[in-house]
Amino acid sequence: MKTLYKNADILCRTDAGYTVIKNGFLGVDGKFINWLSDKKPVEAYDRTVDVTGKLLMPGLYNCHTHAAMVLLRGVGSGLPLQEWLFDKVMPIEDKLFENEIRAGSELAVMEMISCGTVSFSDMYFFPEATAEVVSASGMKANLNRPVQAFDPNEKPTENRRVKEALALYNKYNGFADGRILIDFCVHAEYTCNEDVTRYLSDFVRERNGNLHIHLSETRREHEECKKKYGKTPAKWFSDLGAFDAGAFAAHCVTVEPEDISLLKEKNVSIVHNPTSNMKLGSGFAPLKDFMDAGINVALGTDGAASNNNLNLFEEMHLTSVLHNGFHLDPVSLNAESVLDMATVNGAKLQRRENCGSLKVGNHADFIVIDLHKPHLTPCLDVPALLVYSAQGSDVCLTVCDGRELYKDGVFLTIDAERVYADVRRITEQLYS
Amino acid sequence: MKTLYKNADILCRTDAGYTVIKNGFLGVDGKFINWLSDKKPVEAYDRTVDVTGKLLMPGLYNCHTHAAMVLLRGVGSGLPLQEWLFDKVMPIEDKLFENEIRAGSELAVMEMISCGTVSFSDMYFFPEATAEVVSASGMKANLNRPVQAFDPNEKPTENRRVKEALALYNKYNGFADGRILIDFCVHAEYTCNEDVTRYLSDFVRERNGNLHIHLSETRREHEECKKKYGKTPAKWFSDLGAFDAGAFAAHCVTVEPEDISLLKEKNVSIVHNPTSNMKLGSGFAPLKDFMDAGINVALGTDGAASNNNLNLFEEMHLTSVLHNGFHLDPVSLNAESVLDMATVNGAKLQRRENCGSLKVGNHADFIVIDLHKPHLTPCLDVPALLVYSAQGSDVCLTVCDGRELYKDGVFLTIDAERVYADVRRITEQLYS
Repeated sequence: MKTLYKNADILCRTDAGYTVIKNGFLGVDGKFINWLSDKKPVEAYDRTVDVTGKLLMPGLYNCHTHAAMVLLRGVGSGLPLQEWLFDKVMPIEDKLFENEIRAGSELAVMEMISCGTVSFSDMYFFPEATAEVVSASGMKANLNRPVQAFDPNEKPTENRRVKEALALYNKYNGFADGRILIDFCVHAEYTCNEDVTRYLSDFVRERNGNLHIHLSETRREHEECKKKYGKTPAKWFSDLGAFDAGAFAAHCVTVEPEDISLLKEKNVSIVHNPTSNMKLGSGFAPLKDFMDAGINVALGTDGAASNNNLNLFEEMHLTSVLHNGFHLDPVSLNAESVLDMATVNGAKLQRRENCGSLKVGNHADFIVIDLHKPHLTPCLDVPALLVYSAQGSDVCLTVCDGRELYKDGVFLTIDAERVYADVRRITEQLYS
Repeated sequence: MKTLYKNADILCRTDAGYTVIKNGFLGVDGKFINWLSDKKPVEAYDRTVDVTGKLLMPGLYNCHTHAAMVLLRGVGSGLPLQEWLFDKVMPIEDKLFENEIRAGSELAVMEMISCGTVSFSDMYFFPEATAEVVSASGMKANLNRPVQAFDPNEKPTENRRVKEALALYNKYNGFADGRILIDFCVHAEYTCNEDVTRYLSDFVRERNGNLHIHLSETRREHEECKKKYGKTPAKWFSDLGAFDAGAFAAHCVTVEPEDISLLKEKNVSIVHNPTSNMKLGSGFAPLKDFMDAGINVALGTDGAASNNNLNLFEEMHLTSVLHNGFHLDPVSLNAESVLDMATVNGAKLQRRENCGSLKVGNHADFIVIDLHKPHLTPCLDVPALLVYSAQGSDVCLTVCDGRELYKDGVFLTIDAERVYADVRRITEQLYS
């Protein structure tokens, strides 16, 4: 199947920054872009889609979430952190099994697709259920089975989660024609003992895998680690070999300058989650320092229990204004950098080649923005418009590996009404 | 004309907080609500609108903006403040006359109506043009002619803007059946001399008017005022009599504890503009201190040149998460307080009686939110859902003084295509 998208303004990324091809043509052959130009291709296409007056741009990457937590959206709002987590979130999580995770993942995938996200990095229970949902939906995801080992004496070979993580990798890595990649996950320094962390890190290194962790999200966990081990969480992970293959760390709100140097040296990507960090009162991640150090920074929503959305346009927007305010500097961050975080940097973190930007030979992962809206008028500066003004709801088409997943409010790969009904039934049970 | 909205979940505000009437009925007779109950009225209505599965809530107040600056949306993005303002914004503003302001105001009104705003407080040139646009659109606005007097020796009676401000008041206060109120405006301490400020303040007091000012937006203006006058901008205004009638102050980012006490004592409302304060690098307004002092706090977008939207849902969202992050406290602000800021507090600031909440006898100023969206599922906590998850684009109906202005993406009182064409033509000229 070959499709030609015509008359689009196409957002392209060059070494010099972002440019827009006006009234351009983007051709798709199977999973890949095979034409991108202001000229019409000579070659025939099976199907032509007119996108006059709209903007075609790369699809977005949500690099840290707990997708099925959409089932906990708004739970315990207004409670202090410990009460929220222990009295509200965890008792509900104890009731989540495969069916619940499947329905939650479907709802999350719907939300993400409708807001222009083509791929996400998840960290949650029953990842097999999420893998099947992602496979059917047509989008992409890096999944894992989070490993925890609270007992300091628990042996890696006795840890049920380690076994499940290995089984997940063996069964699902490269699944759905490569759309699903299996990462590994040590949940956090404060939830996993050293032996298990070292064992899993060895396994990751032997397979050249990718490790997803929570790192220095709060001042408390950071300081307690220093008290307990005499080193920061970043140093702790590094000393256990966790950064010797691919690795990416969510949050990094309270990391220290030496941690930033270490993360750069070890080529660890950082996922910035501004809404979650603000909402939970964790604080401001030193994003400028990450960028100055040359670290690959991507964006994440975190779970919907602490965001409360899975909307990368919101994260781009918040990132773009927040750090100006924090540094009292109106040019602390530019729109192009924030677009990079949500696209190419995310693809790099997920280790997806030929993804994250639009060019011939790359995967056909793109979204179309309807510019015919009051808040997108006038269109004087496309990157600024996308980062400061655009909303997730401006996405009118989401395409992943050449397949149209969402168009003009309609989900093309998911029975939305069935999902709403499932979620309604499940949440009635969860909160009864 | 009497209309009954049936089967709505209706967000009501009581002294104990917000409650939701499930499957309720809201009756409108002319400009006013004449029924609000979970029971069907006995009385006959001319027209019934079924809003099953949707949420009916008060319309929003945008209490500080420069509406027609939508024509400058995205201009000079990424430039330092002084270059942005003097090299980009001001040269364009010099080219704005009545026709430009009319088109810009129309576009701004479209954006606001479509995002659920029913009333705004504006501060910009050619307010007569904005008044005519607002009148025709069916929404509400508090307008003014901003007064500036850079020359320290300029006499009030010689100031053209003072004359225009008085003429505007005489012609338009109470215009459009009371939907338009005329306020007064001293642009800021650093742009107006003492004589003119005192003169206008006297005029406001004599008429029991309402004064709209910029106050301590940046550290620089605040400190320079102290150097120049030996007092803070708040004290400067107060000593000139500016706070002796109604008054509301935008920003207040760098006010001091004594200023906050003074603003409370003088019953001055504060308009918090979080996106603008962040984007321009002005910093964090001490919102918690305003609230602790018992000051009436409303929300504003500021102009689209520094936001870059006129979307109160974005401001609610940013307010709700920002101050938690700033104070490292996840319960620094609750959703109900933020809803208050965007509704009742705004109506109070604008001195509109029987507005800002839904009850029998109040003005029929309300919006309807379509809850049948992935990001609004599940609906466990309505205030949290509205503040943390809802988007401006979830508004499917905007009603002001009983008149439907916007429904399912269609503008009912504005020829949207004509406005887009006007704005296109004008911006081509402005930026040629």
